[in-house]
Amino acid sequence: MRALLLDKGLQVVEDYPTPEPAPGEALIRVRVASICNTDLELLAGYQQFRGVPGHEFVGVVERAPGAESWEGRRVVGDINAACGECPTCREGCPTHCPNRTTLGINGRSGAFAEYLTLPVRNLYPVPASIPDEIAVFTEPLAAACEILEQVHVRPTDRVVVLGDGKLGILCTQVLALTGCDLTAIGRHEEKLDILAQRGVHTTLDGDSLAGSADLVVEATGRPGGYGAARRLVRPRGAIVLKSTYHGSIDADLTMAAVDEITLVGSRCGPFAPALRLLEQGLVDVIQLIQARYRLADAVKAFEHAAQRGTLKVLVDTD
Amino acid sequence: MRALLLDKGLQVVEDYPTPEPAPGEALIRVRVASICNTDLELLAGYQQFRGVPGHEFVGVVERAPGAESWEGRRVVGDINAACGECPTCREGCPTHCPNRTTLGINGRSGAFAEYLTLPVRNLYPVPASIPDEIAVFTEPLAAACEILEQVHVRPTDRVVVLGDGKLGILCTQVLALTGCDLTAIGRHEEKLDILAQRGVHTTLDGDSLAGSADLVVEATGRPGGYGAARRLVRPRGAIVLKSTYHGSIDADLTMAAVDEITLVGSRCGPFAPALRLLEQGLVDVIQLIQARYRLADAVKAFEHAAQRGTLKVLVDTD
Repeated sequence: MRALLLDKGLQVVEDYPTPEPAPGEALIRVRVASICNTDLELLAGYQQFRGVPGHEFVGVVERAPGAESWEGRRVVGDINAACGECPTCREGCPTHCPNRTTLGINGRSGAFAEYLTLPVRNLYPVPASIPDEIAVFTEPLAAACEILEQVHVRPTDRVVVLGDGKLGILCTQVLALTGCDLTAIGRHEEKLDILAQRGVHTTLDGDSLAGSADLVVEATGRPGGYGAARRLVRPRGAIVLKSTYHGSIDADLTMAAVDEITLVGSRCGPFAPALRLLEQGLVDVIQLIQARYRLADAVKAFEHAAQRGTLKVLVDTD
Repeated sequence: MRALLLDKGLQVVEDYPTPEPAPGEALIRVRVASICNTDLELLAGYQQFRGVPGHEFVGVVERAPGAESWEGRRVVGDINAACGECPTCREGCPTHCPNRTTLGINGRSGAFAEYLTLPVRNLYPVPASIPDEIAVFTEPLAAACEILEQVHVRPTDRVVVLGDGKLGILCTQVLALTGCDLTAIGRHEEKLDILAQRGVHTTLDGDSLAGSADLVVEATGRPGGYGAARRLVRPRGAIVLKSTYHGSIDADLTMAAVDEITLVGSRCGPFAPALRLLEQGLVDVIQLIQARYRLADAVKAFEHAAQRGTLKVLVDTD
C-alpha cells in the first residue's frame, strides 16, 4: 500500500506492507488523516518512533474478522491499543496500559497510509451528519474533553487557556461550553479571531490576569508555558498540563507547594462526548483547516504543518 | 525581651523590643517553641528573612485588648496572619492572603523569643490533657492533616510516604489512620523504626513499589524527591508536594501529562483536627523529640537541629 514512512526523514513509499488485523482487530481503509503537533515532535525524536506516523483519522472498516457487523462502517478510533488483561486495564484505565501500542506513535503503524489496524473495541461509528473533514477532529477534541473529565469546571470559575494552536483552540471551545469566565491568551491575532468571533474573550497579553485564574490550561506546546501558567493561577488554583514537548524544564515546585497549586497532567480523552459535540455543532473545527493534501504529497503536507502558526493540515488518503 | 535573632548569623539578644499587639491581636508569652526545617532554610536564605524566627509554639495569652476572655489561656496559633478583607480572604483562603504576614517567616517576629503576637482569630485553646511538649507539634501535624483536606485517600489506596524526617513521620502517622495500604520509605533505619513499631510497613528501598502507588507524599525536603515520587506513582495517580527547599528543579512535566499524574502542592493545614488527634493520642510525637534547650542556648539548639538525621529539637522560652 501507499504510506508515509518516517525513517530518518519522511518519504512516501508505494509498497509498504498492508497491516494484518490481529484477533479482535479491524482493518480500516483510511479516508482522511490529519497532522498533530505530536507528529512533528516524532520527527524531532519524540518516542524514537520509526514507521508510519498518524493517529488522527476517519476511515471505513474493510475487514473485521469475528465482528463482521462493523464492516463498511465509517469510524474513528481510540489510538491506545491496550492489552485488556493487566491490572491497569482491569482498573478501567486502558489508555494507560503499560503494554499498550499507540497508533502511529508507539509500536503500531499509523494513519498516513491507505490502511491501518485497530482493535474493534477502540472504534466509534461516525454519525452520517458529520463529514470526514470534521470527523477527523474527534481525537484532538476528545483530548480537550479530557479536561472536563479530570477537573470540575464551575460556571463561576475564572479560566484561562494558554496557547492559540490547534489544541488550545479546541480546549477553549470546549471550556466555553461550561459558561465559565474564560480568556484565551495567544500570540497570533488571526488565530485568536477564530475564538473572538464566537464571543470568547481573547488577548495577546495576559498580564492583567496575573494571579487571578482558578484554572489555567497550559496548551502552548512549549517549555515556557508552565512558567506563564504559574504566573496566571491563583493560590490553590489548578493548572492542566496539555503540552507535550521533547525534554524537561526548570520548575519551581517549592512555590507550587507554598501556594498549594494542583497540577493535572492531561492527555487522551473520551471519544463519545467529542462525537456528540461535533454532531451538535457546538464546536467549530472547519476554521482550523488550513490546507488539504493528497497522500502522495504527504511530505509537502508535513512541511506546511511545520511552518510557524499553521493550524490543521489534512491528508486525503484514498 | 530575650530573643533569638537571625541577622546574617544567629545570636541570642537580651534587649529585643517586645512586640506590641495591633488591634485584634494578642500578646502571647511563649512556653515552648520547636525547630522546623523551614527555620533551617531561612538560615540558608529562604524568604530573605531577618528578625526572630520560629513558628511552632505553645504559649499563654498575656494580653488581648478587646478579647480579654483569652487572657491566661494556653494556646497554639495559625502562623498566617491574613488581612481578612482581600478577595482571597473573603473566598475563605486566609492562609493564602497576598497581604499576609507569617510568624517567624515573613514580616512578623517569631516564636524563639519570650513573646510573640498573633491575631486572636488565629488562636486555638490547648486542652489541659495535652502537655506543652506535645502541643508544640500542633502546627506541623496540621500540615500533615492538610493532605487529607486536599486529597481523598481511600482505605483501599496504595500510599507511599517518601522521607523519614519530622514531617514525613507525621504525614505517615496521619495517613495510617485512614487504613490505607501504606509504606514509608526513608534513609534512616532508626527513624523508620518509630513507624515500624506502630505497625506501619517501612523500607529503605522502594524499588519494588515502582509505578504502583495511587498516592505518593513527597516529604523528603530535597530536590531529588520529585523524581523519586514520579518513579513510584502509577499512571493517573497523585503526588502531594510537601517539600520546600531553596531553588527550582529539573522536572519532566511532559511525562506527567502523558501519564496524567496530578501534583498537589500542600503547605499549612487545619489546627482543630490536629489538636483532636493529639488529644485522642492517635499520633505519637514524643518519640520525635531529640533534644530540649533553654532559649539562652538557642544557637546551640539550631546547631543540633542542623545535624543530619536530627528529628525535633525544642526550645524552652520561659
